Amino acid sequence: MVSRVSKKTISYISQSVATKIDDQLFSQFGFKVEQLMELAGLAAAQAVAAHYPKGNVAVLCGPGNNGGDGFVCARHLQQFGFSTHVVYPKTSRNKLMECLVEQCQKLDIPVTNNLPDLKNFTLIVDALFGFSFKPPVREPFDAIIGSILQSGLPVFSIDIPSGWDVKDGPPADGVCIRPDAVISLTLPKECMRDWNGTHFVGGRFVPASLARDFQLSLPSYPSFDQIVQLAD
Amino acid sequence: MVSRVSKKTISYISQSVATKIDDQLFSQFGFKVEQLMELAGLAAAQAVAAHYPKGNVAVLCGPGNNGGDGFVCARHLQQFGFSTHVVYPKTSRNKLMECLVEQCQKLDIPVTNNLPDLKNFTLIVDALFGFSFKPPVREPFDAIIGSILQSGLPVFSIDIPSGWDVKDGPPADGVCIRPDAVISLTLPKECMRDWNGTHFVGGRFVPASLARDFQLSLPSYPSFDQIVQLAD
Repeated sequence: MVSRVSKKTISYISQSVATKIDDQLFSQFGFKVEQLMELAGLAAAQAVAAHYPKGNVAVLCGPGNNGGDGFVCARHLQQFGFSTHVVYPKTSRNKLMECLVEQCQKLDIPVTNNLPDLKNFTLIVDALFGFSFKPPVREPFDAIIGSILQSGLPVFSIDIPSGWDVKDGPPADGVCIRPDAVISLTLPKECMRDWNGTHFVGGRFVPASLARDFQLSLPSYPSFDQIVQLAD
Repeated sequence: MVSRVSKKTISYISQSVATKIDDQLFSQFGFKVEQLMELAGLAAAQAVAAHYPKGNVAVLCGPGNNGGDGFVCARHLQQFGFSTHVVYPKTSRNKLMECLVEQCQKLDIPVTNNLPDLKNFTLIVDALFGFSFKPPVREPFDAIIGSILQSGLPVFSIDIPSGWDVKDGPPADGVCIRPDAVISLTLPKECMRDWNGTHFVGGRFVPASLARDFQLSLPSYPSFDQIVQLAD
């Protein structure tokens, strides 16, 4: 069971604030990307496991930190009894990303550049682009998102539905993900304000002093939970 | 609520097997210490929050990886609304340990070499020594454990109660922790077989193939939980 929190009690943040929070976590508070990515990916996997039955999940990972969250999510989903397949269209030379790829491969999670045949899958996890993305979606991601839309499979997005503008949401033209459910990390971004799908929040690692400095209203997590679900 | 699992359904492992599992996780499966320590420390904090009311917790951290789990546990306990104070008697020059100290300090968690006055504390978390420890307890840890015993405060041990022999348990002479509750990481070690206190297991990151190779019976974690409690 995931606890519910009213969306009226939390902040919605801009791209600029989201970037500053990340910068502060790594510079001011001395966190390592590996640590917070592990917690973010775990929260995403917990939200998936809370909302969907076990099945075959294609996890789409972009080359940046949003993709890294996706790799971690795939690993935890495997622990939870899901069967996962990572789709990683654009390989990053970032050392951490190389490690995350290796971990999945050694856990017998397939990592492919191209989309597999989606007819055997039950769910897509979208970890292509995070809050740093600026539309439009470029090659090869446009074709991939097109195929996802055509498949009719439910899509769970990590942080930002890929292709959305972080402030304005789905672009007027060009492809973008139409998610069934989303987990916002730290806090929802502005584009999520009027979105009414199933919406989780995770990322229970923001220091209280940082929340005060940025005047953030974080969700009230009960007990030792790592995720909450937003309600009206 | 933490799910219960019969202790008859899981393996108890030796120091040698515990060492080999760790070695394989880092070499064969490409995990980073930062990743698994974050999950271990989170599981420990969740077990504390499941079993004790919020209060003032002194977290005793040794210079090795068990101490690292303690630092991470202290951070998460702060997120859960506990007030934490880390006692770190012997400073390690390991870069990861230096980072973990810095993170706590920047989160305004005091980190001191000496024990504070324990009269304002409600709980001790013992992360001094893990499964690599060989008795007896040496300076300055003997005096610290002596003060803990004298305080009468409940002690929650991470992985191994400090001072215990990993196979034979509490030594015939010499000080050692007498825990109120324990979280075993990955699986309980042999010394825990006949122990009847409150006993959690965490560390939901052991790959199924590794469990098969070592013929390990891991606990059956429900849903997306990171901890279980052992029952008869």
